Amino acid sequence: VTSGDGRPRSRAAVPVSELVEQARAGRTRAVARLISLVEDEAPELREVMAALAPHTGRAHVIGITGAPGVGKSTSTNALVRELRAQDKRVAVLAIDPSSPFSGGALLGDRVRMGDHATDPGVFIRSMASRGHLGGLAWAAPQALRVLDAAGFDVVLVETVGVGQSEVEIAGTADTTLVLLAPGMGDGIQAAKAGILEVGDVYVVNKADRPEAASVRRDLRSMLALTERASGAWRPPVLLMSAQTGEGVERVVEALADHVEHTRGEQLAARRRARARAEVEAIALAAMRRRWGGVASGELDTVADEVATGRTDPYAAADRLLES
Amino acid sequence: VTSGDGRPRSRAAVPVSELVEQARAGRTRAVARLISLVEDEAPELREVMAALAPHTGRAHVIGITGAPGVGKSTSTNALVRELRAQDKRVAVLAIDPSSPFSGGALLGDRVRMGDHATDPGVFIRSMASRGHLGGLAWAAPQALRVLDAAGFDVVLVETVGVGQSEVEIAGTADTTLVLLAPGMGDGIQAAKAGILEVGDVYVVNKADRPEAASVRRDLRSMLALTERASGAWRPPVLLMSAQTGEGVERVVEALADHVEHTRGEQLAARRRARARAEVEAIALAAMRRRWGGVASGELDTVADEVATGRTDPYAAADRLLES
Repeated sequence: VTSGDGRPRSRAAVPVSELVEQARAGRTRAVARLISLVEDEAPELREVMAALAPHTGRAHVIGITGAPGVGKSTSTNALVRELRAQDKRVAVLAIDPSSPFSGGALLGDRVRMGDHATDPGVFIRSMASRGHLGGLAWAAPQALRVLDAAGFDVVLVETVGVGQSEVEIAGTADTTLVLLAPGMGDGIQAAKAGILEVGDVYVVNKADRPEAASVRRDLRSMLALTERASGAWRPPVLLMSAQTGEGVERVVEALADHVEHTRGEQLAARRRARARAEVEAIALAAMRRRWGGVASGELDTVADEVATGRTDPYAAADRLLES
Repeated sequence: VTSGDGRPRSRAAVPVSELVEQARAGRTRAVARLISLVEDEAPELREVMAALAPHTGRAHVIGITGAPGVGKSTSTNALVRELRAQDKRVAVLAIDPSSPFSGGALLGDRVRMGDHATDPGVFIRSMASRGHLGGLAWAAPQALRVLDAAGFDVVLVETVGVGQSEVEIAGTADTTLVLLAPGMGDGIQAAKAGILEVGDVYVVNKADRPEAASVRRDLRSMLALTERASGAWRPPVLLMSAQTGEGVERVVEALADHVEHTRGEQLAARRRARARAEVEAIALAAMRRRWGGVASGELDTVADEVATGRTDPYAAADRLLES
């Protein structure tokens, strides 16, 4: 049985309304099922999102980014441990936008759960972004929406690498934590990767290494060059050792400070930006489906004319938009 | 003076029709100017693309991809040298999608020109992809279109790294060359990066290193597992040393063989896919401008409602599409 648009109906025996209720009651399995619906772009998503909408906006969404090798997953785990010690419910969404071919959850969620495996206050999920345009922009905010409505106090969004997509995600979190480590390249590298623009809290991990202090000093002097309005949040640069747990409490404190400091117009603006990207991605996906629909195939027709030089891409786009 | 949509008018004193004529006559400076118009998303692009359309479809577009460290720019230069020896006009488009903040041409074009600096048969240009959605999909094919119409026999598109964007570009070239090198990680890494799906010609660079032969052997056995239709192109795995020039001639031969083998429906299909992505990106960008236009701001309105839980993203997208 397929739905109207030809996609298979969900495997859900449980009705959506019940799944949503269960997720809101903190049932991990229901949360996982809802996120699978997001990953599958299931037709039920409309209903799910409509049901979740009134219950969103409570979670503190923290983006964690940094180059490979800085110790991102270890740091995420250390933050989870500290947040649990403070009795917060924590979800982790690990996103890997680098590989278009991984398709689905990555290995290692179970490994990463580790000591949290039996703790219902912790939820960890990996998502691969899709290869198609807007896949990342679309799936990540929807998964966040599920976790938010499910009552997690904090959602940590961990991205792999510091590329365009990662910066995009980090940029729409409530708070962005940029992770660095000694020996990961100098300040010019950091500047080039654009991290000086996106961080709300900077953390130099592996603080036990001798060069950690100088990484911190360099970063501080670079950040000092950035102009900020008076009263604006000034990103702290903290030392931490995710391995030993040293400094983790202070980092969690800084993250909470940031969201408190921005509560009001600034936080609202970030959430609006996140919603904007999400709505836009959904609308664009709908347009693409329309253009590429089997019935019309208008896009294929004009693409063929462009490929053979009979028309130019702008004239072709005009025709597509008129159709 | 600004045009109707508020963007600054081009600095062009030369009319577009003349620029196009000059570019078609092989004037390097005119080609460079046209590509700058692409990078600037100049309003004249419509006119430029309309004028170029009838002259496209002649160049052999070769995508070159591979992990950092395999020697991509050295290899590209070696290919340029060999193609010049065969009297082909060659353009190189080097694309860096990793940094959303580089904005504009990268350093080093002049350095890379090296011995080709005074050769009008060679054109080298770096492009940074933009941070916004679809930037890469949009700018790269348009630059290709300029180089194609300008009469270059071969256009080498060199991408940085093997990520999603790179694979996308590589996937729409006429021929995709995947570059590897000994000591760059094992076969599983290669498989994970998705390169087994995209290559038409595989080249193991740094063939003077002792492990080159085993990299080639491993890759061959992995490729042998891929099912291919009878008569389909079977990607060769070649050894090359870009440094010494050894094996370069054979690689150029394989690239020409591939395009000859696919000429007809297969090549047409790839070019249609490239045109499709380009037209779609232009149309989507137009939609986004419409939604985000100062006059309407419909997207901002619905995003605000989503962010505050008053509506859900699907209902919001519906309203956007109806507006």
